[in-house]
Amino acid sequence: MERIPILKMGPFLLVTIQVDLYDRLALNLENDLISMVSQTGARGVLIDISAVSIVDSFMGRILGNIASMSRIMDAETVVVGMQPAVAITLVELGLTLQGVYTALNVEKGMELLNKKLGSDLAQDEDEEDDQDDRDE
Amino acid sequence: MERIPILKMGPFLLVTIQVDLYDRLALNLENDLISMVSQTGARGVLIDISAVSIVDSFMGRILGNIASMSRIMDAETVVVGMQPAVAITLVELGLTLQGVYTALNVEKGMELLNKKLGSDLAQDEDEEDDQDDRDE
Repeated sequence: MERIPILKMGPFLLVTIQVDLYDRLALNLENDLISMVSQTGARGVLIDISAVSIVDSFMGRILGNIASMSRIMDAETVVVGMQPAVAITLVELGLTLQGVYTALNVEKGMELLNKKLGSDLAQDEDEEDDQDDRDE
Repeated sequence: MERIPILKMGPFLLVTIQVDLYDRLALNLENDLISMVSQTGARGVLIDISAVSIVDSFMGRILGNIASMSRIMDAETVVVGMQPAVAITLVELGLTLQGVYTALNVEKGMELLNKKLGSDLAQDEDEEDDQDDRDE
């Protein structure tokens, strides 16, 4: 199976990584995910790595790439379900996943995204209000 | 990786099948899923098979088993994201997935479960009302 399925759940996309990400699979995932963000107008990407028990610098870079690409497309990325051993390895490898949000599980990740989305919307409204004030 | 991750999303469990289900993996999935239903009190199980392009009678039986086990535990099973070729193969194999609900994608599957859950709750209330009427 050459592609990792991307599930649309309301305003978010969910990806569950269950297999080792080799070069081509990772590239496909990046491409598919960005296309899906563009097609669906998704505001958040959840990446579940609870099945990943071994992590290397390649995997770390892919997660960072996806987060950077998504942010440019106005979607935040949350990595969820990381096993403790994976977190230890990432830090020992010197990969602190900058720019990637993390949450303990999918539900908490969705809460985080909803909160971010909520505050974004509130900010937009504030800006509009400010604009209105200025208009008056 | 010996286990397929099961994600809890509100009152439902979500499983994405991305790898070929061989005997042990399938047994582990059945066990894990039933334990999770029991632990979390989940009312629905969503099984995404959008990454599955080849299906055989074993896979069909596993899906049927999961649905039957879940129903005994008071949770409905919805298989989502089936590829057209898989549907064709299933029918040609004579497997009509009896007792398994299907939906086009995860969102529609959740809607279906919510509707079932909603009507279940309404029915429970009706029954309670009837009880009340009889009590009076």
